[in-house]
Amino acid sequence: MKKLIFKIFLFPFLIFLVGCKSVNHCDELYNLMKEQEDFWNYGNIDDFMNFYWKNDSLVFIGKSGINYGWNNTINNYKNSYKTKEGMGTLKFKNIICNPINDSTHIVTGKWSLKRNDSIGNVNGYYSLLWIKKHNGWKITYDHTS
Amino acid sequence: MKKLIFKIFLFPFLIFLVGCKSVNHCDELYNLMKEQEDFWNYGNIDDFMNFYWKNDSLVFIGKSGINYGWNNTINNYKNSYKTKEGMGTLKFKNIICNPINDSTHIVTGKWSLKRNDSIGNVNGYYSLLWIKKHNGWKITYDHTS
Repeated sequence: MKKLIFKIFLFPFLIFLVGCKSVNHCDELYNLMKEQEDFWNYGNIDDFMNFYWKNDSLVFIGKSGINYGWNNTINNYKNSYKTKEGMGTLKFKNIICNPINDSTHIVTGKWSLKRNDSIGNVNGYYSLLWIKKHNGWKITYDHTS
Repeated sequence: MKKLIFKIFLFPFLIFLVGCKSVNHCDELYNLMKEQEDFWNYGNIDDFMNFYWKNDSLVFIGKSGINYGWNNTINNYKNSYKTKEGMGTLKFKNIICNPINDSTHIVTGKWSLKRNDSIGNVNGYYSLLWIKKHNGWKITYDHTS
């Protein structure tokens, strides 16, 4: 009788817990963002963009409003940052990591570009929705201000 | 034997599916935002703020950077919008609703304040993280630019 109760109630409950348990991948994402920062600082926008979801449904909200798609996003970056001097030195300072579930995290922080005086420094805040895809964690949504 | 297979494998799997299934509450959230818009347009910041999570961990990212907490957020609104003329007419235009799970949705859109010529119109974009709390859906995170 006890075995039957286990099969009917406890076992499903355990499966449910294992299946729905939220795991924190914040350190993994912080490490990815460190790599991403390095690519930017090498002047390598292509590898910087590998951390974004390569899909037409990627959402990027920036100064010019909402843009959709990986191709538009990389083109916008390349048009806005044509020289290594313009790209400056990028620093991500992560402030909040919100692990919604095992494959969906929101990372919030402050970005800054240190550049020479003739161009000037810029900075702002980002909210990034990271989702674990078949080829690893990718930014699927970026609100940068 | 078939019954046993059902108990051990199929039943847990069904429980798992029911437990983890993502449901779309976008229309419900759009209706809440319509109510919220109305409160703003009545000049009622207190009721407008009832749609935000009343907690010190509420995150609001705006022009002045990151602010934490419901109290700071309502104070900032009241300091920035001291008159009904300044508050103008708010319009939310929802563009994307991303139902991450049954109790967590991200809503993206464009906001605008129509005001008389001496003050001027303003507009921008929002990313709102709505989470279902014990007292209903609340905005727990707002990135407005």
